Amino acid sequence: MSPESTHPAPTWVEGAAGSLWDVDNLPYGVFGPRDSDEPARVGVRVGDLVLDLAPVAAAEMLEVAHVFEAPSLNPLLSLGRGSWSAVRQWAVSLLTDEAARGLVEPHLLPVAEVELQLPFQVADYVDFYCSLEHASNVGRIFRPDDEPLKPNWRHLPVGYHGRAGTVVVSGTGVRRPCGQRLTPGADGPPQPSYGPSTRLDIETELGFVVGAPTAIGERVGTAGFADHVFGVLPLNDWSARDIQAWEYVPLGPFLGKSFATSVAGWVTPLEALDAARVDLPGQQPEPLDYLRVGPGAGYDIDFEVLLDGETVARPPYASMYWSPAQMLAHLTVNGASLRAGDLFASGTVSGAERGQRGSLLELSWGGTEPFTAGGRERTFLEDGDTVTLRATAPGARGGRIALGEVTGTILPATG
Amino acid sequence: MSPESTHPAPTWVEGAAGSLWDVDNLPYGVFGPRDSDEPARVGVRVGDLVLDLAPVAAAEMLEVAHVFEAPSLNPLLSLGRGSWSAVRQWAVSLLTDEAARGLVEPHLLPVAEVELQLPFQVADYVDFYCSLEHASNVGRIFRPDDEPLKPNWRHLPVGYHGRAGTVVVSGTGVRRPCGQRLTPGADGPPQPSYGPSTRLDIETELGFVVGAPTAIGERVGTAGFADHVFGVLPLNDWSARDIQAWEYVPLGPFLGKSFATSVAGWVTPLEALDAARVDLPGQQPEPLDYLRVGPGAGYDIDFEVLLDGETVARPPYASMYWSPAQMLAHLTVNGASLRAGDLFASGTVSGAERGQRGSLLELSWGGTEPFTAGGRERTFLEDGDTVTLRATAPGARGGRIALGEVTGTILPATG
Repeated sequence: MSPESTHPAPTWVEGAAGSLWDVDNLPYGVFGPRDSDEPARVGVRVGDLVLDLAPVAAAEMLEVAHVFEAPSLNPLLSLGRGSWSAVRQWAVSLLTDEAARGLVEPHLLPVAEVELQLPFQVADYVDFYCSLEHASNVGRIFRPDDEPLKPNWRHLPVGYHGRAGTVVVSGTGVRRPCGQRLTPGADGPPQPSYGPSTRLDIETELGFVVGAPTAIGERVGTAGFADHVFGVLPLNDWSARDIQAWEYVPLGPFLGKSFATSVAGWVTPLEALDAARVDLPGQQPEPLDYLRVGPGAGYDIDFEVLLDGETVARPPYASMYWSPAQMLAHLTVNGASLRAGDLFASGTVSGAERGQRGSLLELSWGGTEPFTAGGRERTFLEDGDTVTLRATAPGARGGRIALGEVTGTILPATG
Repeated sequence: MSPESTHPAPTWVEGAAGSLWDVDNLPYGVFGPRDSDEPARVGVRVGDLVLDLAPVAAAEMLEVAHVFEAPSLNPLLSLGRGSWSAVRQWAVSLLTDEAARGLVEPHLLPVAEVELQLPFQVADYVDFYCSLEHASNVGRIFRPDDEPLKPNWRHLPVGYHGRAGTVVVSGTGVRRPCGQRLTPGADGPPQPSYGPSTRLDIETELGFVVGAPTAIGERVGTAGFADHVFGVLPLNDWSARDIQAWEYVPLGPFLGKSFATSVAGWVTPLEALDAARVDLPGQQPEPLDYLRVGPGAGYDIDFEVLLDGETVARPPYASMYWSPAQMLAHLTVNGASLRAGDLFASGTVSGAERGQRGSLLELSWGGTEPFTAGGRERTFLEDGDTVTLRATAPGARGGRIALGEVTGTILPATG
């Protein structure tokens, strides 16, 4: 039974009802008042406001009140699914029950007056590669003489570990990385040289935040997904394609990705996406038993990619080949343990049409087919560019809900 | 000036002088008395004893006394090089000055009576691939029709991120992982199937423990190595070769490695390895500027690999192509930040001779050339096998010092 069905009442919060941040959304973040030394703590967003949960939970003597005083969601993540659901139900009732208004209203702060921090301490970060269109496009661009998809791609969700220590919150500037890449030789074959990346790119992804941990040796089957995953957030896996192309054989991407990964400041709980569940587009061949999922394993989430405020792509998450439950089952099938704060991401979301591609590599076809933005031709990122990823999904109240926005501006390389 | 030169006196600790654990060694670990609820804390090993540092530091009113009360080395790691050196000098003086004996002796516990824990909380774990012999051997075995070394190998230390959450301390049992691997088809090409790994392997490596952190955007040049790296420890990067071979193209190793990585319980401080510094074997072509190192960039550390107590290989660390200062410079050249507790490892250490190979994949040449151990033919690991890695190096007092031992026993797969 979802909170919505037990609390069908509209919210008393002004401007929230019917908005993208109605009480069928209620994402969690960690905030501190702007220009203040007050410690950061857990809040939930409703309308254009943030509810400061700690003082309200303390006043109501909630047993779990302490988790809202932390400067990260990790203590809340550790509580597990039963508590996540109870906390959400409590928040919905606070925001829909007129009788609670007196208690709650003093603890609502305008979003514009707070600063969002990285919402959780990232334990391990795994990046998957779950879009058939993206994997096919990248294969065609990076390995034009080869089959675009490697033999394993339709049998397992291909993934690798990324750098947890460089996951940053939306709004953090992204310094153009330097590194080794092949550049044209004076009169001979290309040579490796050192310098700033000249093919800096984005990857439009959905990130999944793990809550409930497991011990080494345990496996999480596809049916255990909602017991272990707390919620989702848009993620931009910045990529230096020239560094990546030179380094990635045979051990995979490393410095081409490890300089920064931006995530939204709001984590949307999985329960808020119940109305967004859709069937996968279809898997051929049928996956092995441990990867089987039933109907409704996909999510109907619409992404929008903005370059300097102009929409350049609309990648549809519903087109993803592998589901997040399959990613998690695969990640743990070898007995790898989970920790609260583990983050795994879908890989770039790209649909079948050109305007649905989630990376500039694909939008510009490896830099060979510039696209237009801001009235001029573009391929890869330039210094000063701002990229913003937005996403919305159907909500439980018949409208749409917004996921957290993730934005970042490219700073020039140093030294 | 090394502690040894200011404290040339022998230790008063019985059995320690001239042993592998003399006061030119003094590795750090986190221990708890066996069968006790006492909180784990930081100790230093001398002879067959562990010095419980917290009460001694408290009695001497050391400003940094609190870091020894932690159940991990991370607070000590965060202090930086000046403090690491001062703490080491203090420990040497305690153990060589007869006048300190009365204070110190009550806080020496037999190693046999304590349990070592994971010595630090691992932030990010990066695994390199720095042995020319190992990379060449693996290339020949995995890709027999191709050049063994990829074009980038001699230009940069190839590396990738591993799973930090499954790094375990020596003595932890290692469950045989299940996963997808290719198996012979009934009458056709090999097919992916699910089951326990049948090619379970070891990788004999040296791990480097990062202490002093950096901010995103900073780079650590090769000259900054000793300012940021606290110490080293032997590491066994368990590998399921069948899972790895099927999954690793194009994004690198994932589940073939992420089920467990074992590390020694003792971290040897870098200062203890000053006498072990040797020149690299030589690099051709000369690396790019940011990877240049001077003389003495290598380490003369002798590994020994034991299978069920029998020595099966003696990999020489001095043969490694890339130095750890180059690994760190490369890891941060794109501006990736460091955190206290970051761990990076060398990759398998393999020398030129068959008896110097650090993996069973190489010792058995992909399973095709069994080697003998325990009086019978062996290829990959069997359930119940115990693998132990030992290492020693020249010490500052003219003898040798031991690095921490790392051991693990294979448990049968479940389910």
